[in-house]
Amino acid sequence: MPTSTSKAAKETALYDELIGRSRELTVLGSCSAVLGWDEQTYMPAGAAAHRGEQLALLAGLQHDRATESRLGELLSVLENSSIAADRDSIEAANIRQLRRDYDRRTKLPRGLVEALARTTSLAQQEWITARKNSDFASFRPWLEQVLELKRQESQCLHETLVKERRAAAKPAHPEDEPKPDAGATIYDPLLDQYEPGAETSRLRILFKALREELAPFVRDIAEASRKREARGEGVKTSILERSYPVERQKMFGEAAAAALGFDFQRGRLDVSAHPFCTGIGPGDVRATTRFDARQFSDAFFGVLHEVGHGLYEQGLPVEQYGAPGGEAVSLGVHESQSRLWENAVGRSRPFWNYWFPIARRVFQDALHDVPLDAFLAAVNHVEPTLIRVQADEVTYNLHILIRFELEQALLTGDLPVADLPSAWNAKYAEMLGVTPTNDAEGCLQDIHWSAGLFGYFPTYTLGNLYAAQLFHKANADLPGLDDAFTRGEFSELLAWLRDKIHRHGRRYTPTELIERAVGEPIDHRPLMASLRHKYGALYGV
Amino acid sequence: MPTSTSKAAKETALYDELIGRSRELTVLGSCSAVLGWDEQTYMPAGAAAHRGEQLALLAGLQHDRATESRLGELLSVLENSSIAADRDSIEAANIRQLRRDYDRRTKLPRGLVEALARTTSLAQQEWITARKNSDFASFRPWLEQVLELKRQESQCLHETLVKERRAAAKPAHPEDEPKPDAGATIYDPLLDQYEPGAETSRLRILFKALREELAPFVRDIAEASRKREARGEGVKTSILERSYPVERQKMFGEAAAAALGFDFQRGRLDVSAHPFCTGIGPGDVRATTRFDARQFSDAFFGVLHEVGHGLYEQGLPVEQYGAPGGEAVSLGVHESQSRLWENAVGRSRPFWNYWFPIARRVFQDALHDVPLDAFLAAVNHVEPTLIRVQADEVTYNLHILIRFELEQALLTGDLPVADLPSAWNAKYAEMLGVTPTNDAEGCLQDIHWSAGLFGYFPTYTLGNLYAAQLFHKANADLPGLDDAFTRGEFSELLAWLRDKIHRHGRRYTPTELIERAVGEPIDHRPLMASLRHKYGALYGV
Repeated sequence: MPTSTSKAAKETALYDELIGRSRELTVLGSCSAVLGWDEQTYMPAGAAAHRGEQLALLAGLQHDRATESRLGELLSVLENSSIAADRDSIEAANIRQLRRDYDRRTKLPRGLVEALARTTSLAQQEWITARKNSDFASFRPWLEQVLELKRQESQCLHETLVKERRAAAKPAHPEDEPKPDAGATIYDPLLDQYEPGAETSRLRILFKALREELAPFVRDIAEASRKREARGEGVKTSILERSYPVERQKMFGEAAAAALGFDFQRGRLDVSAHPFCTGIGPGDVRATTRFDARQFSDAFFGVLHEVGHGLYEQGLPVEQYGAPGGEAVSLGVHESQSRLWENAVGRSRPFWNYWFPIARRVFQDALHDVPLDAFLAAVNHVEPTLIRVQADEVTYNLHILIRFELEQALLTGDLPVADLPSAWNAKYAEMLGVTPTNDAEGCLQDIHWSAGLFGYFPTYTLGNLYAAQLFHKANADLPGLDDAFTRGEFSELLAWLRDKIHRHGRRYTPTELIERAVGEPIDHRPLMASLRHKYGALYGV
Repeated sequence: MPTSTSKAAKETALYDELIGRSRELTVLGSCSAVLGWDEQTYMPAGAAAHRGEQLALLAGLQHDRATESRLGELLSVLENSSIAADRDSIEAANIRQLRRDYDRRTKLPRGLVEALARTTSLAQQEWITARKNSDFASFRPWLEQVLELKRQESQCLHETLVKERRAAAKPAHPEDEPKPDAGATIYDPLLDQYEPGAETSRLRILFKALREELAPFVRDIAEASRKREARGEGVKTSILERSYPVERQKMFGEAAAAALGFDFQRGRLDVSAHPFCTGIGPGDVRATTRFDARQFSDAFFGVLHEVGHGLYEQGLPVEQYGAPGGEAVSLGVHESQSRLWENAVGRSRPFWNYWFPIARRVFQDALHDVPLDAFLAAVNHVEPTLIRVQADEVTYNLHILIRFELEQALLTGDLPVADLPSAWNAKYAEMLGVTPTNDAEGCLQDIHWSAGLFGYFPTYTLGNLYAAQLFHKANADLPGLDDAFTRGEFSELLAWLRDKIHRHGRRYTPTELIERAVGEPIDHRPLMASLRHKYGALYGV
């Protein structure tokens, strides 16, 4: 059959061209990633303006290449080719995902992209000043501008999203009605940028169920905590605020990171003002943290968190580098990896069975008189507070649920920007029982909205939910995981995550990926069960 | 005159487009510079292959943009515009220099550029192995391949160079004969890439004159040195090989760099295996060094040297950034800045009048029993040796003169590659009185030829010649410079260099720039005079 052979060869050539273009775009993006990492770690202060010019040029080059009409042509042909016919193949997944990316990029007018870049850059500067002065009034017009642009962005992406959902919801029999939830709110296209396929309506149900269990649980812990403190038996978090020399923290953190499986031949750990992790490319994954010589846990759990992100990046399939099959699937799944290593592993008794004796030798001055139980109580202390990034793993999700509700209301306009501070404070009083005394510790605390990151917050809680489900399933699949941790061995768990999550890249949607890994739909109950198990014991609730 | 106004406005718009394109190219190149710096300083080992892919992509993008026909169109129009008519203006200089760059880039076929990149990349790997094993035979075929490609490169650039020289040599009266030296040897187009406008024939005359004075002077010093040693009065260089803790070396080096005027708000000093300095862009100039806790002078003078390069980069006019007017003019002039600060300033008695008391406090264990005179003798010790990068400032130029002769003979074919080791050894015996015992310390010692850098070596000696002339003139213009150094003040000298060299970018040719600064033609005598003055006193010759 010479005809079909030559047709197949032609399709393969087109597929290779598509992937080659995708790889070029990825490599170009990875150059920006190096510059971004450098900006946060080593760049001299005086280079800021020039760095902006460099990143803008690279972003422009990327945008031009990502929206070339040739990409659209290749996708149109390949979607109807035999390569795409085998829906379960990695090639078909790559075509699907590149179509997804292409449609979104080409739907945004260049003017809007540039206005967003410019306005959010200025708004972030204004936010820094506004937070410093706790001056919401000066930030308000900037937030209004950002919101207006994000509404436009949502509108541009709306049609594509609805079309995709209709296609996905297409009934098996043509005469059936399509499923009813193919529509989309103004929030959906923004959320979908960070968590592809996530639907606002489903998240609302999921988060409501979580809140109904979590809020009373937090109240119970707070109550138990107060009683203990009244008896003089409160948790001594002050043991974490002793002398922890920075060089030793660095050494200890790197030792733990290496033990979890982070490969320092293919990665680094540096210092930056705001901790992050960036996967630059194969063999190049860089995490950062910040050290305080009088505080142990921020840096250490920060390292475990960022290294959790890094392990995901290091586990992506190298042979798919440059194609969607070689990329992380969503922010929620990314966060599930960081939270799993930070909290489920790093704050567990089995982990510290192995590491605490070492910590006592490394930080002799600070820990010589501290028993393991007191240390575990301190690193797992629960207390409703005002600041999200300092929150413990139990109260953390309430901070997110507040933001999830408020940012939807801001986008629809149901909540006027002027009313944000009072709405914020009311929510905190209601859900956490604490009230900000000023906007710096209230609605000005996070950078996200000034940066245009609407729809981003829920991925933190999705990450926590995914992490709990994954860790529950890993323990079921790998009996003796606790014993392994106690021996300082983490490779079994990492291999399991590599197999269930990392190696798949963007082959499946986030929901499909998690459901395939755990064999169940996304659910809030595994998280609540694990919190009840651990904190029930610690606080006697 | 609406017509001429609108013509001027049109020309201005075209000029702005030209400079805008030049700036984009410069910014793109500066992204590669960040990646190159990172590769040498912090990049994890496992990222090497990916870094190669990143740099190749950026280089390809740069090449495409640098050879776009629109650039040629703009240059053709602007060369005949009123903007270019005022030859002394910075705008006219920018047009001239962009024409120069464009002609050279477009004359090289893409196949040759790629073959050179590929072959020199492989040849450098082979060179590393060959040097380690002192195995010239294994490197020989690679050197032959590189030479063949460089001959082709020279041929491609030959016509452009001859045309430029003819134009420059055009007699004032059309009936006169053009000057005779408008031709070019095979070496000229390669040399011209690093030192624009330099001519092989003139360099031969200049270097011959230098050699005739320098070789006997080196012999006299060596003789005097032998006699002193026989009397037990030899220079004690061992005082530089005592305990010099790395952290203290870093602190001391940074203090000296800052005192010379290096702005750490707009620059950095890091560690790399091979010291270098890279000007990434406005506000971002990065030098590196390497430390050895048992050796003082390599790192310290390495810092002064690289910081000398850095001061030039920090002194380029920011308002011309992206245009030739904002770029360093040549490797020779660049080297003149590093050598001036390293040798003329950094190895002088006035410099150490101020810094030695500080050094004695910082390196108490090493220097407590060392008088200033012994220290000055040690950091200025002259001894003919085999390795260029370890050579003192007197013998250094003989190493260069050897390479200058040999690389011309290699290119013309007068010296077959197979005969290089014996020719090398003969030259060292003749000019320095030392003979390599193997090729690792002979003709395999430098990376340059494996990297295709033919025509590069002479810029080191040009740098030394320029530096001596500049320093001589600076002392004439600024009486009391020695006293200022003794007080630890270097800003007067830096301001003079900023005014005479840095602020001009590529406005003039290197020769014009130096001649304007010192008021005399390039000459070997100021260097010889300064060497005789300093080393005559030290060695009594």
